[in-house]
Amino acid sequence: MSHRPRRRKRPKYRASPGTSPGTLVAPHGALPTRIRAIAYGPNQHEEVEIGPDLDALRQLRRRFPVVWIDVTGISDIARIRALAEMFDVHPLALEDVVNGHQRVKVDRYPNHMFFVVYMAEDDEDLGTEQLNVFIGRDFVITIREEWDRSLAPVRQRVAHTEGRMRRTGTDYLGYAILDSVVDHYFPVLDIVSERLEALEDEVLERPGPALVARIQGVRRELNALRRAVWPLRDVIGELMRLENEAVIAPSTMIYLRDLQDHVLRVIDLVESYRELAASLMDLYLSSISNRMNEIMKVLTIISTIFIPLSFIAGVYGMNFQIERSPWNMPELTWRYGYPIALGLMLAVALGLLLFFRRKGWLGAR
Amino acid sequence: MSHRPRRRKRPKYRASPGTSPGTLVAPHGALPTRIRAIAYGPNQHEEVEIGPDLDALRQLRRRFPVVWIDVTGISDIARIRALAEMFDVHPLALEDVVNGHQRVKVDRYPNHMFFVVYMAEDDEDLGTEQLNVFIGRDFVITIREEWDRSLAPVRQRVAHTEGRMRRTGTDYLGYAILDSVVDHYFPVLDIVSERLEALEDEVLERPGPALVARIQGVRRELNALRRAVWPLRDVIGELMRLENEAVIAPSTMIYLRDLQDHVLRVIDLVESYRELAASLMDLYLSSISNRMNEIMKVLTIISTIFIPLSFIAGVYGMNFQIERSPWNMPELTWRYGYPIALGLMLAVALGLLLFFRRKGWLGAR
Amino acid sequence: MSHRPRRRKRPKYRASPGTSPGTLVAPHGALPTRIRAIAYGPNQHEEVEIGPDLDALRQLRRRFPVVWIDVTGISDIARIRALAEMFDVHPLALEDVVNGHQRVKVDRYPNHMFFVVYMAEDDEDLGTEQLNVFIGRDFVITIREEWDRSLAPVRQRVAHTEGRMRRTGTDYLGYAILDSVVDHYFPVLDIVSERLEALEDEVLERPGPALVARIQGVRRELNALRRAVWPLRDVIGELMRLENEAVIAPSTMIYLRDLQDHVLRVIDLVESYRELAASLMDLYLSSISNRMNEIMKVLTIISTIFIPLSFIAGVYGMNFQIERSPWNMPELTWRYGYPIALGLMLAVALGLLLFFRRKGWLGAR
Amino acid sequence: MSHRPRRRKRPKYRASPGTSPGTLVAPHGALPTRIRAIAYGPNQHEEVEIGPDLDALRQLRRRFPVVWIDVTGISDIARIRALAEMFDVHPLALEDVVNGHQRVKVDRYPNHMFFVVYMAEDDEDLGTEQLNVFIGRDFVITIREEWDRSLAPVRQRVAHTEGRMRRTGTDYLGYAILDSVVDHYFPVLDIVSERLEALEDEVLERPGPALVARIQGVRRELNALRRAVWPLRDVIGELMRLENEAVIAPSTMIYLRDLQDHVLRVIDLVESYRELAASLMDLYLSSISNRMNEIMKVLTIISTIFIPLSFIAGVYGMNFQIERSPWNMPELTWRYGYPIALGLMLAVALGLLLFFRRKGWLGAR
Amino acid sequence: MSHRPRRRKRPKYRASPGTSPGTLVAPHGALPTRIRAIAYGPNQHEEVEIGPDLDALRQLRRRFPVVWIDVTGISDIARIRALAEMFDVHPLALEDVVNGHQRVKVDRYPNHMFFVVYMAEDDEDLGTEQLNVFIGRDFVITIREEWDRSLAPVRQRVAHTEGRMRRTGTDYLGYAILDSVVDHYFPVLDIVSERLEALEDEVLERPGPALVARIQGVRRELNALRRAVWPLRDVIGELMRLENEAVIAPSTMIYLRDLQDHVLRVIDLVESYRELAASLMDLYLSSISNRMNEIMKVLTIISTIFIPLSFIAGVYGMNFQIERSPWNMPELTWRYGYPIALGLMLAVALGLLLFFRRKGWLGAR
Repeated sequence: MSHRPRRRKRPKYRASPGTSPGTLVAPHGALPTRIRAIAYGPNQHEEVEIGPDLDALRQLRRRFPVVWIDVTGISDIARIRALAEMFDVHPLALEDVVNGHQRVKVDRYPNHMFFVVYMAEDDEDLGTEQLNVFIGRDFVITIREEWDRSLAPVRQRVAHTEGRMRRTGTDYLGYAILDSVVDHYFPVLDIVSERLEALEDEVLERPGPALVARIQGVRRELNALRRAVWPLRDVIGELMRLENEAVIAPSTMIYLRDLQDHVLRVIDLVESYRELAASLMDLYLSSISNRMNEIMKVLTIISTIFIPLSFIAGVYGMNFQIERSPWNMPELTWRYGYPIALGLMLAVALGLLLFFRRKGWLGAR
Repeated sequence: MSHRPRRRKRPKYRASPGTSPGTLVAPHGALPTRIRAIAYGPNQHEEVEIGPDLDALRQLRRRFPVVWIDVTGISDIARIRALAEMFDVHPLALEDVVNGHQRVKVDRYPNHMFFVVYMAEDDEDLGTEQLNVFIGRDFVITIREEWDRSLAPVRQRVAHTEGRMRRTGTDYLGYAILDSVVDHYFPVLDIVSERLEALEDEVLERPGPALVARIQGVRRELNALRRAVWPLRDVIGELMRLENEAVIAPSTMIYLRDLQDHVLRVIDLVESYRELAASLMDLYLSSISNRMNEIMKVLTIISTIFIPLSFIAGVYGMNFQIERSPWNMPELTWRYGYPIALGLMLAVALGLLLFFRRKGWLGAR
Repeated sequence: MSHRPRRRKRPKYRASPGTSPGTLVAPHGALPTRIRAIAYGPNQHEEVEIGPDLDALRQLRRRFPVVWIDVTGISDIARIRALAEMFDVHPLALEDVVNGHQRVKVDRYPNHMFFVVYMAEDDEDLGTEQLNVFIGRDFVITIREEWDRSLAPVRQRVAHTEGRMRRTGTDYLGYAILDSVVDHYFPVLDIVSERLEALEDEVLERPGPALVARIQGVRRELNALRRAVWPLRDVIGELMRLENEAVIAPSTMIYLRDLQDHVLRVIDLVESYRELAASLMDLYLSSISNRMNEIMKVLTIISTIFIPLSFIAGVYGMNFQIERSPWNMPELTWRYGYPIALGLMLAVALGLLLFFRRKGWLGAR
Repeated sequence: MSHRPRRRKRPKYRASPGTSPGTLVAPHGALPTRIRAIAYGPNQHEEVEIGPDLDALRQLRRRFPVVWIDVTGISDIARIRALAEMFDVHPLALEDVVNGHQRVKVDRYPNHMFFVVYMAEDDEDLGTEQLNVFIGRDFVITIREEWDRSLAPVRQRVAHTEGRMRRTGTDYLGYAILDSVVDHYFPVLDIVSERLEALEDEVLERPGPALVARIQGVRRELNALRRAVWPLRDVIGELMRLENEAVIAPSTMIYLRDLQDHVLRVIDLVESYRELAASLMDLYLSSISNRMNEIMKVLTIISTIFIPLSFIAGVYGMNFQIERSPWNMPELTWRYGYPIALGLMLAVALGLLLFFRRKGWLGAR
Repeated sequence: MSHRPRRRKRPKYRASPGTSPGTLVAPHGALPTRIRAIAYGPNQHEEVEIGPDLDALRQLRRRFPVVWIDVTGISDIARIRALAEMFDVHPLALEDVVNGHQRVKVDRYPNHMFFVVYMAEDDEDLGTEQLNVFIGRDFVITIREEWDRSLAPVRQRVAHTEGRMRRTGTDYLGYAILDSVVDHYFPVLDIVSERLEALEDEVLERPGPALVARIQGVRRELNALRRAVWPLRDVIGELMRLENEAVIAPSTMIYLRDLQDHVLRVIDLVESYRELAASLMDLYLSSISNRMNEIMKVLTIISTIFIPLSFIAGVYGMNFQIERSPWNMPELTWRYGYPIALGLMLAVALGLLLFFRRKGWLGAR
């Protein structure tokens, strides 16, 4: 039974065109907003759930060198706007967050940098989800729709280790978040790779039309991953060019280079899986056409053998009057006429089979 | 019943080649010219219909910092030329307006910038229409053939809000017009997306030759959109490089960057729909060939089962003389000869069916 | 009846390889040489046919600021060489003129610039013809094989108007010639467009193998146009970069930019027609295969219906001896045996037809 | 019998995503670690197996200008880490070594350069294996999984010749290692070339579906080689740009240029073999479809000849009552009725054969 | 009869990998070495065959400003090495000469430039052969395997004319050699063009599987030419950039530009022939499938006409007992039963033919 892959939701434009830029409307079906703050310095660390009142946040900011505000769900536009105002987040950047469906990019605003990246989810769906990251001098804000697993390891590193993470600034935290996002592509690609292997087996053993939709499904997933990953290269490249401007600490640079390397590996994998998927399609087409040819060949061979036999039977079914002439079908009166006729049919059948075998048309391929 | 998509009118060159550049001839079938002026400053706002006499315009220009002249219909060449002369519009630019079928571009002339962009219409047709925009120090002129919906929101923003729009100069008005044009691509792309989804369903469920023309039609629409959108990237890129020359106010720059981002998103969508349309074509071809193969297979299986049966019937239709020899078709004289023959036929038919089923040639695919 | 497109003559190399560069041999079949001079200044204008003696030319050059020498036919190598020497034309450039089959290009020599462009002819053939243009300080030489229509408008503008043309120098004349060449591509592209539309109709209505050759023919014409037009972009780009060097007057620059714009439009059209032609080929293939499939399906359905019927007839043609046993084909002795048999056949035929109709195999597609 | 090519193991990501960068875990199934040091100067040369204690290494380093530490097997993480610390190898580079599946690249660290390249193995498998090379001022470290043949010639050159090798520094040793790696691609490509030739023969002589998988297998191998070789060009290009920085001795530069040339040759070969493999696939498809067409044609011709013959036999098998009318099948009573009927059949069969031959449908292709 | 194109020999790597660079081993099957020296100055000219002793060469070098040493056959490694040492040829360049199968390139060494180009041979094979050219201040060395025609014209120009050739230095001689090599591509391309035309005719008139291999053969030849010609563009471009460094005389520059132009024309031709060959393949596929479809259609039409006829004959071959009932096949007893049955068959046959003709299935395509 064929299961057609779930169709990827295509982006719908929400704000009606022509409205003033910066207008914010919570998207239909947005999840409830929840804000967590993780503040830390070399020796301290505090993780607080922030309610509607943002005062707690203001105090954390005063006490700690780095505050990471992790927001999930964007239905509460008012709270998000208040948060944005507290950290001087630019309205256009905030519009991008709320509208969603943004391109992977990095924008530099006076008070902060603004990243849009896509987290890959390694569930059945292989979907991607927009992650918005604001990096300021003393704060990092991450905004996304759902509580995703890929940022959990970063939170744990902040909480449990007193290593490099705690001693460095927001640039390293930003790097750690991006690194976690990129590293999450690998298990997703492993799933893709397994699907491709399974598809390859099926294509060779049980080619059927349902496979086409599934191969196309994997190709679509790879295209989505590609769109998520390719621009990351430029985004990180742009970050690395910021070294001179003292936004990124030189000690973080070597980690950015390593991150870039991971991105390039993900791109390599995506590209080679795309090639593989394309060649699978070719393999499928050749496999299905072989199979159909094989069937038609066997059927036609069966017909071709019986048609001459039927002809012989037809000849001896003719009603020429034996009595009127000795030339009229004397075979019918022979003692062994019938066995000879059957033998003739057998001989013709065997002769044809032999001919086909010699031509190699009967061989198991 | 297949409905073939309306064929896109291909551009015909109007002015006979070799004529002096700058010659103006109203295109055949041009709509009547209508001129509206929208003048505004931080606190005032006036919207006037301009008749054949352009004096009213001259006064508006004196009284307001920004005048937007919105022209539709280009049949009245004389009036348009007078308008152009009043604002020192270059004859070559004016020639481009009247001839139509221009490329998306931005040209810098001494007194103004000249844009050619294409507005997308979200009606049945998904056509595009040339919009010519002249941006000078204190004026913006937009010229197009038909009264299009996409500029209405901009006019409303000028009329009803006293926000950023009113306080800023012609550069921001120009941006607002371009932004409205770009934002109008999104609903058009939603229509394309829905068409592609509908086509995908039909391809899988009811593949027929009429689909080819419709898929090709969508591909042609996407190609037209692509030609309209790709060069916008360079046009806006060129605008952004003007920052140093004080043509574009620095405060407008951040909006241009946002506009560029929207353009890139439109391009991404167009490209991914193009890929989708191409893969639909592949899906269709594989679907139609599967269907035909299936039909031919069933037909051939029916023939193949009956041909051996006919052969058996043929054998017992032979006229070998039973009387002359006990070897001649003794079956014909048996008590159960006929039932046995029928049973033999049944056995052969069932045997073949069993063989085909085992080979998997009868399975529901 | 299929008419195969005339095959484009492929270039043959004339001078035997290894000869000293600059050797001139009139190509086989060259037309007789004819030289016309058009000399003009702001107020004067003279058009003279130049005979074997070039003295008249020398005098014109002295009297007028701009002399345009328009040569057709290159069989008279001696005269062309004399002309070239009078204007210090470089031997290598002259070799390119005589050998023909040059690439579109612009070469800068000490005394002149040398252009090779291709004029398109809007006749049945859609051929292209090499036009060689030399632009010096006070002269323009154009050399081509046949008297082509595309330069006539330029000559008329020189003759009849006293506008910009007459007041400007050789750079503007050169621009006018190039502009006329480029503008002549538009009607040619209109012809191509009409051919493509006609082919599209035929592909959908009367697909036949002759169409393949005709589609390929149009593709070849488009490829020839493409080779003629693409390099023009670089040629004009290179001209525009000459602004700083005072070769091109600044007032001519704006016209060059307009010309470049026309070239880009021609390129856009050529590319979109190329895409269209490629998709026509796909449409043809799918159309022809649909048609063939339809035929084979109908034929096979006819066979498939009659084969079981023939089987029934065969059964009742068997000769089992009725007399020997009541089990032997008692149907043959029934009163309504024959009508029942015919009715059975009819039932089988109708049953199969019904089955095929339900499967949707009979529907008008 | 078809043997399906062994499927290339696809990389699995080992470290769980989100862990702190620089964490080292020995990969599952890593081989035991073995360290050899080859130290040399212009006149001396020593080759020592290094045990768990690295002191011997420290002394060698003091006594010799160049020490080459050749490590195979990366299961003993502790020893490798100790080695890395002794030579100030950066933790991120070490992580790349242990994790494996890196991209071909060169990274510059403060104390050393770090190369990742892939050695090709010329065995049945045509696999590639990661080779990590660290080049410092007085040391070269090579780390790989298995004891590969491709570095043996370099070791021999160090051991046995007192030529250029001994007098130069680590840059030349690094070059020699890369050169050896690149040169090992040639025999591998020879094997690929032979496989392609064998496949070409089989495609033309015995096309079968098993060939598809084998052609795809070779294409996959070529893709792996391509991924290994293409980036080498940039790696060496980057090395050559280091000339100014006195990392690479000028005398080594000319050898780097030669190495680059070899890399480009390998790339050329890989690309042309890729083209060949692609055209093989086309050849196969056309070959297999020709073959199938040929079979179907012969079978259909056989059927087509016998069907009219059967029809004639059918006619004379009709039971019209001769006795009732002289019009009813008088042929049945003719003296030579039967021979005439047989002759008619023969004539029809020969006529059809002649018709087919004239049409060229019987010719040996 | 199909003649398969000779398979191009694929390069085998000779020196075992890992050997010290610069090692020279004469390739297997190398031709005997023969050295000719052509020395000349403005007024003198001498052509000498050089034996094992190179002293004669030394003297020529002293007496003439330019010495051209033309070597064919590279089996005598010792003599070639001696020659190389006399002119300070770099060992790495010499290695490239002896190993062969080099890429087209130019390398600059302290004492000379080193070119590798490929001469095309216009014989049946259309092979290419490596030509190595060393250009020093007062010498040019050309080394190749076989005595090729393409350098003969250069030798003749040196010998017989006292023109530009004799007065200029080694740079012009080098140019003349390259020019001769490039000019030799044109007749080769003419041969390719003729082959393509012949193939096109055959594809349309007598499509057969043998054509595939021949089309692929031409494509392979074009690929080989492409690899030989494309890099020449960069090689000559690099030469032209040397102008500033006084290696190339300014007067030679204009000739280099002309040479570059020829190279670009060759590239254009190669590319357009490649397109043509690709479209030939498409044409072939569509032609062969049309032909096969046509055959199958005719065969199926024949069968389809006879199957209903056989059915009618079968009906009247049934043995229903006329005597038992007036309903049982009364037709058999009619006076004109048999002629009516034959007439019915004829009517059915004509009806089907008419139906097929109306559907357009019988038309000559």
